Amino acid sequence: MKIVVALGGNALLKRGEAMTAENQRANICRAAAALAELVAAGHSLVITHGNGPQVGLLALQSAATPEPPFPLDVLDAESAGMIGYVLQQELGNVVKERLFAAILTQVKVDPLDPAFTTPTKPIGPVYDEATARKLAAERGWTVAPDNNAWRRVVASPKPLEIVESQVLAFLAARGVIAICAGGGGIPVVEREDGSLIGVEAVIDKDFASALLARQLGAEFLLMLTDVDAVYQNWGTLSASPLGFVKTSDLVPGDFPLGSMRPKVEAGADFATKTGHPAAIGRLEDAIEIIAGVRGTWIEPADA
Amino acid sequence: MKIVVALGGNALLKRGEAMTAENQRANICRAAAALAELVAAGHSLVITHGNGPQVGLLALQSAATPEPPFPLDVLDAESAGMIGYVLQQELGNVVKERLFAAILTQVKVDPLDPAFTTPTKPIGPVYDEATARKLAAERGWTVAPDNNAWRRVVASPKPLEIVESQVLAFLAARGVIAICAGGGGIPVVEREDGSLIGVEAVIDKDFASALLARQLGAEFLLMLTDVDAVYQNWGTLSASPLGFVKTSDLVPGDFPLGSMRPKVEAGADFATKTGHPAAIGRLEDAIEIIAGVRGTWIEPADA
Repeated sequence: MKIVVALGGNALLKRGEAMTAENQRANICRAAAALAELVAAGHSLVITHGNGPQVGLLALQSAATPEPPFPLDVLDAESAGMIGYVLQQELGNVVKERLFAAILTQVKVDPLDPAFTTPTKPIGPVYDEATARKLAAERGWTVAPDNNAWRRVVASPKPLEIVESQVLAFLAARGVIAICAGGGGIPVVEREDGSLIGVEAVIDKDFASALLARQLGAEFLLMLTDVDAVYQNWGTLSASPLGFVKTSDLVPGDFPLGSMRPKVEAGADFATKTGHPAAIGRLEDAIEIIAGVRGTWIEPADA
Repeated sequence: MKIVVALGGNALLKRGEAMTAENQRANICRAAAALAELVAAGHSLVITHGNGPQVGLLALQSAATPEPPFPLDVLDAESAGMIGYVLQQELGNVVKERLFAAILTQVKVDPLDPAFTTPTKPIGPVYDEATARKLAAERGWTVAPDNNAWRRVVASPKPLEIVESQVLAFLAARGVIAICAGGGGIPVVEREDGSLIGVEAVIDKDFASALLARQLGAEFLLMLTDVDAVYQNWGTLSASPLGFVKTSDLVPGDFPLGSMRPKVEAGADFATKTGHPAAIGRLEDAIEIIAGVRGTWIEPADA
């Protein structure tokens, strides 16, 4: 089965863990082991990944030297280089019979997307409220609460088109496993003459993955994180994991903004538009999620 | 004709220019215009590029935040992301009828390469001697003179194998123009079990490009920089540009270490091993260099 697998930021860096090269590699090794099981089971994979902690750190680093800080599109590309390389290496180390290619991926967005005036995507480290507000004042950031802490938030426009989808289709046809749309891809807008130019934003990697899965004709969208399922009434005494749920029974607004909601929305979008299922669950459970024994499946209304 | 085109660091950032995202994009636009002429003339390109100023800046940025600095292999990958993205975008903007793919490229090196004990590759900004020595003492860097200034130098082992060459061959066969081996590629060593792991180094992009050209069966290796030709007796009153030169007439030791010598050595290596020519010249002259009316051609001894 052709599967687009989206690795969440929390699957690549444990919550609260320091963003070091070593921690990142250790988590990527865990991810590679889980993905190897899917390859061994005969599935064709296209792999995407988040970049929240990484792009935030690169932004801090870029602001820490005298040169003007690099714009977010360039930092997105740097983060895709950093994460894509280690993923490619560690996947190659456990799946020796296959070829891998980490591809920088541009994603078209609408220059008039309301996200540019209302930033919502958390990036970088967590702060207490006072520090967050101080940094916001000093650096012109927007900051917002995220779980029990505060983080910088940036524009997160909706992805409209994966620019490199034809290249990715060529590679898939040759059995090459692509690592692409890192951090949701590099956001670009189309100018009047048809040329592309990067914009300052970070695209949600689940939305980008759902779009990619549609453009590549994937039969399954698998979103892997550090939570075992989508929960109804999350954070309350009556919280209960969802097993199989139809898009017609889902109310995305029931799920927490910023973490689970984009996954549920992306899954429902993919299922509705393609008639194929999407699923959400824990990285280590990947093979059981595909088998339908763990995680939450989002199925089209008429399935 | 199948050509591997190597864009020098000085073709991507003018000597003395600040390493900002804007300057980098402006230079990449110039490079894209020159490369577009080669595509329009019907040539099949594989594009590589340097990363000296960029990886040096990323190393400074990475050292400027409290987290432990990232190793050079990861910084190489970040720089390939940063430069590859902008190249891909600006090339796509001027060559609309072709597909481009920026590919993260691992390059095997020998863990016992003497370069690991004798660093020679300059990266990052230029310093005066006193500042360079102070930074070396503070940060454990090796520093060395480079032209009339001082710079940090890092290990630059010889490339042995382009890991992603088969993927690059697939793309070339489909007419996709790959941007790869950025900064000479990401240096990796093979462990006893056959797995790969990154090492702290920066590979010379001309040597990596010559190897790539051989592995891909290219018919021409074109190294573009900001100097119009290879000069005999460079820096003296009798300096004279070389037009066509046979490998048997070349003494690489005649050329300045660190700038022109690796290009001459890489060109001679490609010409000797493949029987095809290599050439060195100015970015803007690319199409005239291929025509044999500008730049320096290095031809096999028996051509």
